[in-house]
Amino acid sequence: MERLPGFRDFYPEPLPTPDAWSCDARQYIFNKWRETARRYGFREYDGPPLEPLELFTLKSGEEIVGQLFNFIDKGERAVAMRPEMTPTLARMVAVAERTYKKPIKWYAVPQLFRYERPGKGRLREHFQFNCDVFGENDPSADAEVIALLIDVLRSFGLTTEDFVLRLSSRNAWEDFFNKRNSDPSKAYEFFQIIDKLERAKPEESAQKLSELGFSYDEVADFIQGGEPTSELAAILNNLTARGLGEFVKVDYHVIRGLAYYTGVVFEAFDRKGEFRAIAGGGRYNNLVKLISGGKVDLPALGFGMGDVVLLELLKSRKLLPKFDSQTDIFVLIEDEQLRCDSLKLIQQLREQNFSVEYSLTPVKSDKQFKRALELNATHSARVEKTEPGGLVVKLKNLKTRAESSVALGDVSALSEMLNATTRFPSDLTAHQ
Amino acid sequence: MERLPGFRDFYPEPLPTPDAWSCDARQYIFNKWRETARRYGFREYDGPPLEPLELFTLKSGEEIVGQLFNFIDKGERAVAMRPEMTPTLARMVAVAERTYKKPIKWYAVPQLFRYERPGKGRLREHFQFNCDVFGENDPSADAEVIALLIDVLRSFGLTTEDFVLRLSSRNAWEDFFNKRNSDPSKAYEFFQIIDKLERAKPEESAQKLSELGFSYDEVADFIQGGEPTSELAAILNNLTARGLGEFVKVDYHVIRGLAYYTGVVFEAFDRKGEFRAIAGGGRYNNLVKLISGGKVDLPALGFGMGDVVLLELLKSRKLLPKFDSQTDIFVLIEDEQLRCDSLKLIQQLREQNFSVEYSLTPVKSDKQFKRALELNATHSARVEKTEPGGLVVKLKNLKTRAESSVALGDVSALSEMLNATTRFPSDLTAHQ
Repeated sequence: MERLPGFRDFYPEPLPTPDAWSCDARQYIFNKWRETARRYGFREYDGPPLEPLELFTLKSGEEIVGQLFNFIDKGERAVAMRPEMTPTLARMVAVAERTYKKPIKWYAVPQLFRYERPGKGRLREHFQFNCDVFGENDPSADAEVIALLIDVLRSFGLTTEDFVLRLSSRNAWEDFFNKRNSDPSKAYEFFQIIDKLERAKPEESAQKLSELGFSYDEVADFIQGGEPTSELAAILNNLTARGLGEFVKVDYHVIRGLAYYTGVVFEAFDRKGEFRAIAGGGRYNNLVKLISGGKVDLPALGFGMGDVVLLELLKSRKLLPKFDSQTDIFVLIEDEQLRCDSLKLIQQLREQNFSVEYSLTPVKSDKQFKRALELNATHSARVEKTEPGGLVVKLKNLKTRAESSVALGDVSALSEMLNATTRFPSDLTAHQ
Repeated sequence: MERLPGFRDFYPEPLPTPDAWSCDARQYIFNKWRETARRYGFREYDGPPLEPLELFTLKSGEEIVGQLFNFIDKGERAVAMRPEMTPTLARMVAVAERTYKKPIKWYAVPQLFRYERPGKGRLREHFQFNCDVFGENDPSADAEVIALLIDVLRSFGLTTEDFVLRLSSRNAWEDFFNKRNSDPSKAYEFFQIIDKLERAKPEESAQKLSELGFSYDEVADFIQGGEPTSELAAILNNLTARGLGEFVKVDYHVIRGLAYYTGVVFEAFDRKGEFRAIAGGGRYNNLVKLISGGKVDLPALGFGMGDVVLLELLKSRKLLPKFDSQTDIFVLIEDEQLRCDSLKLIQQLREQNFSVEYSLTPVKSDKQFKRALELNATHSARVEKTEPGGLVVKLKNLKTRAESSVALGDVSALSEMLNATTRFPSDLTAHQ
């Protein structure tokens, strides 16, 4: 019984095969995403993984259906597993925007789906960090979102040597287009050519551009000039004030293929150009109005960052930490007559928030100790009888070999002893 | 554009309507689930939300299809959105078990789906905490899993007054059945009657039982007697040693409807009997063999706990904390000439791991201050000019009104000052 093509199993480390996906790495990424969003005052939301098909065709047109995981459900509804989060978000915001002070700053970590052609490495699902702001037209909102994007990447240890954020503007391209072409119905076709400019052959692009009345050179000159619009200048100033200026550059190659962007657009790339874009986003001031059938009109912008490219990048830069164990204390049970007392100790340690492991069944002491080392436990603990007939807990720091002991059941003394020894509680917070 | 019936949107608090679902409460529950699993040494895994239909019919029979969100995908595959996690888990373990030391202790927090009849409160998706152990037959494994289940519920503030874990045994019921009926093909039918005994009318149960050759009284007597099997006695002793004995009782009413359980079974109930079962599980020693086509044979047990009943219970016991804000510091920008300097401060504070809010655009100072109070920020911060032409950061604790100041840009002094004031860093860890 195999899993479906394009879907992933996520295993705990150590991984069963080199190409298996790590649930630990996934959780590490999700935690960084959430933690950075929190620092920026973004709040989490989520929506259904299954939506009416119309929600997606309304935004992207009927062409999108070919890429969707869509079907007819048992109630005869045309539905689709969500290929992106933004339409759901626009629906949610349109319904509830009166409850929330503007600007609304929200994030989500949805799993997204598409019925992609199968092939090696071609996935049909991925996770995406989505951050969006509603209700603010000022470029200061764009800067806030871009700063968040930069800081998320920095939180993984990535630096200016690893990535750059290319900043562009649909407005600038619209101005360029309108000054030279009077047929607005051709604008989207033009944007598509610009979007593919870096990957396509110059002759082909030149041919397509000339059909729309543009010369390749004037387009190349415009990109080369790279004069920031006043909006882009405001964003650059804002980011420079934060000390993040060196992470951004204006680059009119970026235009974002999707039809719905209305202003500033941006993409994060690795500096070495080995990977696809790490993240991308921009303004989409018309979407809430479209999705709400004209009832609500709110400016909006945001970005999405997938887990797959990010993980590849972090691996290639050796920025993933080791995830092999989270055990704080291994309780050794060497005398089976003390098993019940050991269980009492185990419970007390877990109630102190420590991750505790032990042998469920009788096992030779050297094997237990070996297991403690395999799990990279920081401490071992053992219940021992004392001469007067009492019971003590012997605690050993497996790194420093330092030992200490306390009467079994004296929870406050036990807690004090553990807090006094190394790696606690700082290491605990790392697990949270 | 409405969402599909039976699916949920999750909003940040404050909620737009009283019946809206809270993403903050959801994350609070997920964090407690993960944190308790970590203390018990369980590791996280996940699988695809979409699986071959056969994976579920193999385990539960063709009858299950009527309840599934199943469809034919564009590649002509019969697929289903997962209604439960265990078949996926069994598949994953069967493939990879050699990599992992036994017992394998894993958990997941999947979203599960079913095509339930629509109706108020009837959901077509929920989230479920799944904890399972593979490779250990001893009742000590059952005790470990049950202790984890108890401690998860305790982590929410629930006590012996709120819930009880009813412990039973398929083995005991099989013995009961086999001593009185020689037709093993009727065993499942018999178990179904027992499963419904508490909810069905006694006459009806009596009638059905007599058709299988049992009297209602002998069944009632067996339940009444409630003699623990040696397995159950071992589990009770184990839990009592941990100090968790008062959370469990043997109760043979519990048998768990599903066909695949093979040994100890259990359910967690609220003491007042207001809700459906909070959690349920048991041993299923044959499933890995079945799913792997006989290739791998591993004893297994586990439980599932849904988010919906748990949330209802926590609400009714007033055990949900307030989630209205996570802002640590609100930066007031009263002089627009200092906006760039304020942005620098904002960045520094966020790099210190604080959650920082501010007005993206110029706003009157009293409105900014009002917003800081609304967000329940613990501190306000403000950049001010000093006489000699320098810049200082004024920090104010909004609870104690205590003020302090430090030169702008002196990050280590700023950090020290913040760590010296109240609510830090303990409150920070609560956000992680």
